[in-house]
Amino acid sequence: MTSPSPANPDPLDTSLTRAGVEAAHKLITPLIHLTPVLTNATLDRLASTPRSASDLEGTEWAGRVPARPVLRFWFKCENFQKVGAFKARGAFHAIERLKQTPGWEEGGGRERGVVTHSSGNHAQALSLAALASSIPAHIIMPSTSTPSKIAATRTYSGRITFSGPSPESRASTTAHIQSLTRATFIPPYNHPHIILGAGTAALELLSQLPPQVSLNGIITPCGGGGLLSGTALTCSTTPTLVFGAEPTFQGADDCRRGLLSHTLIPDVHTTTIADGLRTPVGEIPWSIIHDRGLVRAVYGVSEADIKKAMRLVYERVKIVVEPSAVVGLAAALFNEEFRGVVEREGGEEGWDLGVIFSGGNVSLEALGGLLGEEGPGAGSGKGENGKGVDGKEDREADKLSV
Amino acid sequence: MTSPSPANPDPLDTSLTRAGVEAAHKLITPLIHLTPVLTNATLDRLASTPRSASDLEGTEWAGRVPARPVLRFWFKCENFQKVGAFKARGAFHAIERLKQTPGWEEGGGRERGVVTHSSGNHAQALSLAALASSIPAHIIMPSTSTPSKIAATRTYSGRITFSGPSPESRASTTAHIQSLTRATFIPPYNHPHIILGAGTAALELLSQLPPQVSLNGIITPCGGGGLLSGTALTCSTTPTLVFGAEPTFQGADDCRRGLLSHTLIPDVHTTTIADGLRTPVGEIPWSIIHDRGLVRAVYGVSEADIKKAMRLVYERVKIVVEPSAVVGLAAALFNEEFRGVVEREGGEEGWDLGVIFSGGNVSLEALGGLLGEEGPGAGSGKGENGKGVDGKEDREADKLSV
Repeated sequence: MTSPSPANPDPLDTSLTRAGVEAAHKLITPLIHLTPVLTNATLDRLASTPRSASDLEGTEWAGRVPARPVLRFWFKCENFQKVGAFKARGAFHAIERLKQTPGWEEGGGRERGVVTHSSGNHAQALSLAALASSIPAHIIMPSTSTPSKIAATRTYSGRITFSGPSPESRASTTAHIQSLTRATFIPPYNHPHIILGAGTAALELLSQLPPQVSLNGIITPCGGGGLLSGTALTCSTTPTLVFGAEPTFQGADDCRRGLLSHTLIPDVHTTTIADGLRTPVGEIPWSIIHDRGLVRAVYGVSEADIKKAMRLVYERVKIVVEPSAVVGLAAALFNEEFRGVVEREGGEEGWDLGVIFSGGNVSLEALGGLLGEEGPGAGSGKGENGKGVDGKEDREADKLSV
Repeated sequence: MTSPSPANPDPLDTSLTRAGVEAAHKLITPLIHLTPVLTNATLDRLASTPRSASDLEGTEWAGRVPARPVLRFWFKCENFQKVGAFKARGAFHAIERLKQTPGWEEGGGRERGVVTHSSGNHAQALSLAALASSIPAHIIMPSTSTPSKIAATRTYSGRITFSGPSPESRASTTAHIQSLTRATFIPPYNHPHIILGAGTAALELLSQLPPQVSLNGIITPCGGGGLLSGTALTCSTTPTLVFGAEPTFQGADDCRRGLLSHTLIPDVHTTTIADGLRTPVGEIPWSIIHDRGLVRAVYGVSEADIKKAMRLVYERVKIVVEPSAVVGLAAALFNEEFRGVVEREGGEEGWDLGVIFSGGNVSLEALGGLLGEEGPGAGSGKGENGKGVDGKEDREADKLSV
């Protein structure tokens, strides 16, 4: 008998470790897409150009000398993942682990199905993953959910029950459906199988780079913390540093604030445009991010910076992303704290930075609203259509790196 | 001395043949991006589902039995090309050939530079290609051009001269600048080097497929005809059929109509949303498309069908494309003539169809207008957010095929 190794992970390993992520990846690889990794010379140049003093006016960095980082981005495109988001990884993993549970099939687990509460990508991901194994999925959604999200969940045969909009109503409705169906609860992020599944995006990213490239860091969005903590597990045995990014609007940066005060912040009430990041960090992700110290730092970004980063991705990378997906890029482009770290630690050689684009589910109507408010050329912050971007190949589009 | 072969094309070959395309590709490969080829299970399913009788009401196919083609798409993503469009291929090729011209350097050709008239992607492509070789590029644009296109051309150091909006003013201004500068004229499509460069997109596509896949056809947009005729040259020694697609709005389908009447139609006046396809087919492309019979057929699509195809690409493939880029997909999804051909010739096994997405340069403001008019769910034609799409993995995103 051989001992488990990266090439041959122990299939029963669900520990919150790199080995656990490797085992998850082996299990879900046939079920998910190997999403591409893209590079973009224009965004590298933009990120490697100091912001102007006037750009910093009106921010917390007004009057500071702008940082001079050198950055090379490696974008892991989970907007191309099944259901349009990395959430498929955790959902498929959770379903596969459920099917492996001793006695589950015999005890009628398949018929009882799974249940969750979500109005977003997790609802669709769990519905799809359950459907692929012919397992019913019960989804509790607030009755105020947008019709498009309800329709998308129904497309994957998710069985929707509406709750009131409050967390209490959601919890009581979930409990009610669970008591009726005896379905297994699969939460959106606060669960080891979900976290290990989420960590597989970074595992793939590290394996997709050219041999001469070693990532100095990976930055991911942080909502409930599943993606950030999973990424941290993946990198825990590597030299790659892990960073999180959050919107600051109405205190959505609960993880960042929690890390500063060494206290999990359990409640967040925000309507940030990064709608996948409105939830507070869960306890299990927090134990990885904070208690085990596997995340170096978390940075906040403004709503305006999220819009600017989105516009740049649309105009330069030519791919469709949702607002939550670009907060890591926004931090790398606009957060002077993070940019200062890269300048100090990367020096003239700079950093290779992995950036996980978490999803691409944004309605075209919402998109028009999001980007239309900005007006032409807001992406560069300097006028119309890219005048703010230095360099010659301004509209050079992304290049496949794998 | 070895004779030229696909692996070792004659570098001096600029004949309007497959060998000429291979030589062009060898020359420009270090200068352009190898753009990815994407597949998408949802679009395959949608294309392989007969349209409903009610879908055909109000079209020229009302009352017909809907075709039942089986289609598997292979999307060649030139929206990811440099300057965001396939036009970079022809422009780099033309510049490289110019540099090879005996006596050009010694005769002061470099200082004289190049000149063209274009308000679109060719202006940017030629500016970039010239800039990369430190050659000045003089661009004649109508004074009515949108500020964003002017700015984009300037980004690549294109030296812009404004003309009046009429073709006569454009021609006289071009002649004036040419007499002043003695620059070499590089037209947007009616030139062998441009056509051979454009043909390299299909050459790459054919080489990027899995070994077991052989394309039954490739469909490309047709404006001036450079991409369509170049693709036809590439496929001229293969069993792959070549098709074109054009908007029908205000007679923009000049190539389709010209093929029916065996007459080149020299004038077109249209404001189709597919703004790259407003020009009539050029004489050299026409000699390949019509006289040499290397294109099987050209199909027309409505403005509404272009919008529906765009919406589907945004929602399902998650990439940014311009209206001109999706007319081939629109034909495959909505043109009953083309779908009938695939049904008859492909039978139950169906067709593998290459679709060239020609570019991705659309302003976000224009995008909102284009897609916003449609209202939610217009992409599926059957209500909100994909209810019209059969199959279970409705939001399954695209998968990298290479």
